[in-house]
Amino acid sequence: MWGGRFAEGPSAVMREINASIPFDKRMWRQDLRGSQAHVAMLGRQGIVSAEDAVRIAEGLAQVAAEFEAEGVPDDLALEDIHMLAEARLADLIGPSAGRLHTARSRNDQVATDFRLWVRDAIDQAEAALGVLQDALLARAEEHAESVMPGFTHLQSAQPVTLGHHLMAYFEMFARDRSRLADARVRMNLCPLGSAALAGTGFPLDRDATAAALGFDGPTRNSLDSVSDRDFAIEYLTAAVQCSLHLSRLAEEFVIWASQPFGFVSLSDQWSTGSSIMPQKRNPDAAELVRGHSGRIAGALVSLMMTMKGLPLAYSKDMQDDKPPVFEAHDLLGLCIAAMTGMIESATFRTDRMRGLAESGYATATDLADWLVREAGVPFREAHHITGRAVAAAEAQGTRLDQLSLDALKEIDARIDDRVYGVLSVDASVNSRTSFGGTAPVRVRAAIAAARKGREEEGR
Amino acid sequence: MWGGRFAEGPSAVMREINASIPFDKRMWRQDLRGSQAHVAMLGRQGIVSAEDAVRIAEGLAQVAAEFEAEGVPDDLALEDIHMLAEARLADLIGPSAGRLHTARSRNDQVATDFRLWVRDAIDQAEAALGVLQDALLARAEEHAESVMPGFTHLQSAQPVTLGHHLMAYFEMFARDRSRLADARVRMNLCPLGSAALAGTGFPLDRDATAAALGFDGPTRNSLDSVSDRDFAIEYLTAAVQCSLHLSRLAEEFVIWASQPFGFVSLSDQWSTGSSIMPQKRNPDAAELVRGHSGRIAGALVSLMMTMKGLPLAYSKDMQDDKPPVFEAHDLLGLCIAAMTGMIESATFRTDRMRGLAESGYATATDLADWLVREAGVPFREAHHITGRAVAAAEAQGTRLDQLSLDALKEIDARIDDRVYGVLSVDASVNSRTSFGGTAPVRVRAAIAAARKGREEEGR
Amino acid sequence: MWGGRFAEGPSAVMREINASIPFDKRMWRQDLRGSQAHVAMLGRQGIVSAEDAVRIAEGLAQVAAEFEAEGVPDDLALEDIHMLAEARLADLIGPSAGRLHTARSRNDQVATDFRLWVRDAIDQAEAALGVLQDALLARAEEHAESVMPGFTHLQSAQPVTLGHHLMAYFEMFARDRSRLADARVRMNLCPLGSAALAGTGFPLDRDATAAALGFDGPTRNSLDSVSDRDFAIEYLTAAVQCSLHLSRLAEEFVIWASQPFGFVSLSDQWSTGSSIMPQKRNPDAAELVRGHSGRIAGALVSLMMTMKGLPLAYSKDMQDDKPPVFEAHDLLGLCIAAMTGMIESATFRTDRMRGLAESGYATATDLADWLVREAGVPFREAHHITGRAVAAAEAQGTRLDQLSLDALKEIDARIDDRVYGVLSVDASVNSRTSFGGTAPVRVRAAIAAARKGREEEGR
Amino acid sequence: MWGGRFAEGPSAVMREINASIPFDKRMWRQDLRGSQAHVAMLGRQGIVSAEDAVRIAEGLAQVAAEFEAEGVPDDLALEDIHMLAEARLADLIGPSAGRLHTARSRNDQVATDFRLWVRDAIDQAEAALGVLQDALLARAEEHAESVMPGFTHLQSAQPVTLGHHLMAYFEMFARDRSRLADARVRMNLCPLGSAALAGTGFPLDRDATAAALGFDGPTRNSLDSVSDRDFAIEYLTAAVQCSLHLSRLAEEFVIWASQPFGFVSLSDQWSTGSSIMPQKRNPDAAELVRGHSGRIAGALVSLMMTMKGLPLAYSKDMQDDKPPVFEAHDLLGLCIAAMTGMIESATFRTDRMRGLAESGYATATDLADWLVREAGVPFREAHHITGRAVAAAEAQGTRLDQLSLDALKEIDARIDDRVYGVLSVDASVNSRTSFGGTAPVRVRAAIAAARKGREEEGR
Repeated sequence: MWGGRFAEGPSAVMREINASIPFDKRMWRQDLRGSQAHVAMLGRQGIVSAEDAVRIAEGLAQVAAEFEAEGVPDDLALEDIHMLAEARLADLIGPSAGRLHTARSRNDQVATDFRLWVRDAIDQAEAALGVLQDALLARAEEHAESVMPGFTHLQSAQPVTLGHHLMAYFEMFARDRSRLADARVRMNLCPLGSAALAGTGFPLDRDATAAALGFDGPTRNSLDSVSDRDFAIEYLTAAVQCSLHLSRLAEEFVIWASQPFGFVSLSDQWSTGSSIMPQKRNPDAAELVRGHSGRIAGALVSLMMTMKGLPLAYSKDMQDDKPPVFEAHDLLGLCIAAMTGMIESATFRTDRMRGLAESGYATATDLADWLVREAGVPFREAHHITGRAVAAAEAQGTRLDQLSLDALKEIDARIDDRVYGVLSVDASVNSRTSFGGTAPVRVRAAIAAARKGREEEGR
Repeated sequence: MWGGRFAEGPSAVMREINASIPFDKRMWRQDLRGSQAHVAMLGRQGIVSAEDAVRIAEGLAQVAAEFEAEGVPDDLALEDIHMLAEARLADLIGPSAGRLHTARSRNDQVATDFRLWVRDAIDQAEAALGVLQDALLARAEEHAESVMPGFTHLQSAQPVTLGHHLMAYFEMFARDRSRLADARVRMNLCPLGSAALAGTGFPLDRDATAAALGFDGPTRNSLDSVSDRDFAIEYLTAAVQCSLHLSRLAEEFVIWASQPFGFVSLSDQWSTGSSIMPQKRNPDAAELVRGHSGRIAGALVSLMMTMKGLPLAYSKDMQDDKPPVFEAHDLLGLCIAAMTGMIESATFRTDRMRGLAESGYATATDLADWLVREAGVPFREAHHITGRAVAAAEAQGTRLDQLSLDALKEIDARIDDRVYGVLSVDASVNSRTSFGGTAPVRVRAAIAAARKGREEEGR
Repeated sequence: MWGGRFAEGPSAVMREINASIPFDKRMWRQDLRGSQAHVAMLGRQGIVSAEDAVRIAEGLAQVAAEFEAEGVPDDLALEDIHMLAEARLADLIGPSAGRLHTARSRNDQVATDFRLWVRDAIDQAEAALGVLQDALLARAEEHAESVMPGFTHLQSAQPVTLGHHLMAYFEMFARDRSRLADARVRMNLCPLGSAALAGTGFPLDRDATAAALGFDGPTRNSLDSVSDRDFAIEYLTAAVQCSLHLSRLAEEFVIWASQPFGFVSLSDQWSTGSSIMPQKRNPDAAELVRGHSGRIAGALVSLMMTMKGLPLAYSKDMQDDKPPVFEAHDLLGLCIAAMTGMIESATFRTDRMRGLAESGYATATDLADWLVREAGVPFREAHHITGRAVAAAEAQGTRLDQLSLDALKEIDARIDDRVYGVLSVDASVNSRTSFGGTAPVRVRAAIAAARKGREEEGR
Repeated sequence: MWGGRFAEGPSAVMREINASIPFDKRMWRQDLRGSQAHVAMLGRQGIVSAEDAVRIAEGLAQVAAEFEAEGVPDDLALEDIHMLAEARLADLIGPSAGRLHTARSRNDQVATDFRLWVRDAIDQAEAALGVLQDALLARAEEHAESVMPGFTHLQSAQPVTLGHHLMAYFEMFARDRSRLADARVRMNLCPLGSAALAGTGFPLDRDATAAALGFDGPTRNSLDSVSDRDFAIEYLTAAVQCSLHLSRLAEEFVIWASQPFGFVSLSDQWSTGSSIMPQKRNPDAAELVRGHSGRIAGALVSLMMTMKGLPLAYSKDMQDDKPPVFEAHDLLGLCIAAMTGMIESATFRTDRMRGLAESGYATATDLADWLVREAGVPFREAHHITGRAVAAAEAQGTRLDQLSLDALKEIDARIDDRVYGVLSVDASVNSRTSFGGTAPVRVRAAIAAARKGREEEGR
């Protein structure tokens, strides 16, 4: 297939290291779809005869039917999905098959196939994240008033609502989706017609093939088109970012499912047991979601490092673009689906959440803010006064709102009994009405706005 | 500064590991700017008195003047730029300073400061890349007709023009700029008012502070606002991608500057010598640009890994967001500037480029294409015929266009003397007129379109 | 300094990107030490005169004294610490200084300096880890009998002792130290005398300079000596591994310090407070230790990627070897010291630990094992029986050892009252006497063996 | 298999994300081998009856025979290779199979299996590198006198010999092997008997199982044994380092095979052609070796990041230890084999190498050294004089040794005609006799020493 200049074939190791068919056969649909668009255009432009164009198109359809039915054979000797598909075409229709590769090279062919594949991957991730967002919305609405401790440094900080907490992830996944959408726009240009690296002298209609394949237009520089894989790297960066967000939610599930926290019970469907400890109910799925972020990040590092310092145009190193992208796609898809299932089916133990929120002095800031607002104390001073109140409550082993007024007045005489109006976790949560704050009224408004946004997306 | 509950201060090691002032002082302008916007809003909303608001604003201006004049002191005991600035404010204006931190926490403060800083970094990178693009345009125009060998696998593949080659990088940097622009839009929301994590009960005007700081609006979820650093990761991913593109151009400079290639002479300004080998003229800048892509990628890995698996909301791990971003910004800025200088001042040895293009059978594809076009040979067969022609030329030690017609006809009788019209490198280059191809007419059109785009950006 | 062939100096950007003095000045002691060894050997070998050798040695001593007293100036024009030190020497002693660089190049000079620096870094990390191990030993001994829940998946699994848990980290750090020690042996060969890349014709005594600098001998191939930085990468891999171990212990501190766990109280010296929430006591140091593992891993990725695909011999990219190593060293040193301080000063809440161990069905495996041992039930069947017992206890809301014998017999008639002897957490822990197990007798033996090992190290 | 507490089975997504059988079935030999050692010990210790021990051992042998003959079935419902093997055993021998898992958990089982697998991987890599070293030795000996330009910054620096250059890689791979050997020693302890995490109360003989499996002894802490994967990370770091060395040699092959360099012709067995450019002979294998370093580094990053911050003991994230290790092993094996084949079969174009060495002023340092040695000029001054000589030769378009004595004397009067004795590349190379230098006599000695070392290894 390389022309007539090679006296000897490749060694067995060479064949093995060189062949991409074991993984790039996964792009067979994209490859055949690209060939169909190419040959239709060649026919329309008179670059191949109408007959040949039809014969090739029919042959390609037959190849597709075979691959669909029987899978793609692993023939290392044919190197890659492009040669394998063309070889099968030649078996089926004879020498006319040789006209398909006119005005094309494997360099622009693989760039096109892979863009099509990555575009599909983006669309799938984006849609799956939408479903996860819907799950978050549903549970957030259910828990718009459920009080839980908000943590910083995993220490009780201020009371928040579980709905607000879940909506934080809604926002993260919204940004992840928007990153995917941006990547899609940027990559959605068609390399086909760039040929090996220099373009071609055949009278192609690149707009036509681009349109037939759903691209917004053709790429603008043939060397760039066959040389760069930044679209794949950008997909991976979006995938890593999303997986990092998932890893955080997963960590929370692991911690929340621990006995001391007890904030969540995972359903049987999303738990596993132990081969030796029969009492166990393990949050394996959450751990796997957390762990997979490492593998997705590894995939990104892999491709970044592979692309580093490669001179133009195509180098064979670039064949290593596909395995990390395929792996990241599979893992990300599983992670999103698993997280969606966990969110949908989890039982949140709101009693445990409220109990912890009440016991951790989480309304101390409310006391400080009250001093500022009602007694005109500068915040820094109010912060110190409140610190002493917390110390007093700790010493007595009580909650902050269980300190007597005398005890509070001893700490600072400006405190009066109106203060008890802000020291409960409900009062605290209800008070935080600033835009983006945790007050249920705000959370409900945020949910409504989010739902509207989802509806406008038309899904 | 932590209120009154700590009997003992931190140990020396604790102070050292905990303090961020050695690096976050770099954000002092952003910090003071954010405080000015915050206090102006507090004043307008009546949360602090008009007098206090003025006093604080004047004090902040004085702090800024001092930092500008004398730098920011490295006081580990004050932990970070936020406490240090407020402490200096208190020195200057007394207890009123304590009112500045009303309805604010260091959590939303640092998130705001850092967004402002990253936004500036994006703007700088984006502008610098524009200058680099202009340099590429100028040299591409100069060399729109200069023939060079186009390489794949660093082997002569097909002739291209140097202008086309440089324009490939123009495209890459255009995408890099567009990634930065997308990141800017996505991050340009203001966290101020999210307070520690839950929002606040003070009657803030978050729209006002957002507008004052040039944001498009306030962020939508307080927990998310203080917890995420995906804007910083996204900046780093854009920086890595750009640095990878730079690394490829740098690799080409290193190879092109080698004696056997001799495609480029770097100016004295962009070369270095040796302390022991006086004949050396080393492309150090290009090597450093290439190498720095590793460090920028390392910065990205650093922040991705740091953020992995952190539960909401703020955790101190997130303090490690800044050093990698600062380092990547500095390195990227240097790399872009150095590459711009190299491009602007390089002497391209077009004689050497043409010579190599002519000697490497780079027009073999043109012969194959001619057979397809003029003799109706299927491409695959044409490819084989051409392979034999190359073998014949190699055997004779001649160029392809120096083979006699007899020799060519012996290989395939369908070849006639019109074939010589496609075998020269100029003919080859001129023929590749497909959109995005290397034909000078295409390259000039691409340059014109690019220039128009640059002008429309209004710079 | 590059000989007479450069008409023009470098541009400002070139100077900035090229100069390493801002960071490599940190190696000034190593540089001067290497120069002293080199000139002494040159003198002994008669390559420079005895007078010159003395004059240079005295000059170098004076340079060292100046640098010690006043620091190393940041003179970008002199590029690096090597040129800067030699320039200062020339100021002090005149043209004789020019003889120091005989039979040497900056290539072997920097390779030697950096090995010396990394060797010191290894020694420091190794010693610091020894101190951390001692801290672990002390606390493990104190808690050899303290029962805590052993977790898998952060779920109570089986009771263990805190001493056993701490000793797990002792083992990890022992391996980390052994990795550092192996790296030290492998790198401890002296590149000096490799000159630029090819060796030299001067009659050097490489054994002498190697010995003077504490190396085990000279390196064996001059090209390799100036080209490779695998010793630095290996140091970084050992540092990352150690930081990963530290990150795990740090995660445990963060979780254990949370209110729901309450397993540990950090001392004031190792906690921080909040600028807004006066009740907070945050485990910042633990979080920073956890987070820094990301930065140390980023440093490794940086250098790996920088070294990828560099042809022999020295390329300027390799200048980027130092910043990641310096940063990793500083961070690792802080992390080890902080973790040592936290271990030494932490208050372990053994009551909380025991309480949780008792409440989580952690002895279920002991029941299964009892069925195997005493009733001859195959393990898999015993596992199922025990699962039913746990379900019964859960339904009754009791501990496993609080189930009545009747209730147990109803589940499986083979159970008799001897079973209560294995269902307490103390019984469980005491029973696990297999080598490496958690039985206090085993833990004490492990501590004794570890102490003996530490003593034999003679530190 | 988790006991009787789960009312519902896992969801389909849960099953898919949770199951490791698709990849961990690769460890089936290790798993069965570990089980055989375990059951033999259980029998000897009387923990299971002699009959059961025999029955289980025979059953395991039959399972092994089946897996060998028919492969391992992909049964997701059985989760992993451990459950799958035991389930098949139960099919074959009935309830006695349930006794195999006595005093064992999947936690210590998988830790043992994976150590066995990694140990084999180390042994294979180490042996393959030995073969590559032998190939380097053979070619180095052949080219001990072949002069080539030694490069720094890819610029001609000083002449070296090809043999010396190849021996540089011999040294690198020697260190890589030694890293693998160190890793092997460190990891060669047996976790079996650590059980779930706490050890066991059954009277195990851990020394016996360790010995049966070729370990040096049992691990020392049960928690550590089931929690850590640093042995796998260490294997990956050794693999990355080796792949980086390979990437450098691969880069050289790519550059050397380019037309302008023409230093090497790859054999047909190690080249590929183009689907469109029939003249191409591409160094694909070298590019793939270079590119794979990115994927191997990605594998390392993956596992480092996955392990970050995991609390003790086993977490399911750790299931992600295997795919990166398996991938790195496969890629590294291919890379070493491919590089060995390329080295063995490459045709080195020594004429081209010598020609370039002679044309690039590569003996300028020899002139400077001559001035130091023969005319007593300080090196720095000699460096400047030589710089002027190079400039003069450049101006005349001649080699350095073609400058007339008059021309040289005009530059510096101390030069006399003895200088011509050092200006040829042969003289230069022959002069560099310092230990580790490029003089053929040194290279031959290095080769002889290396051969002796290889022989002493007994392979």
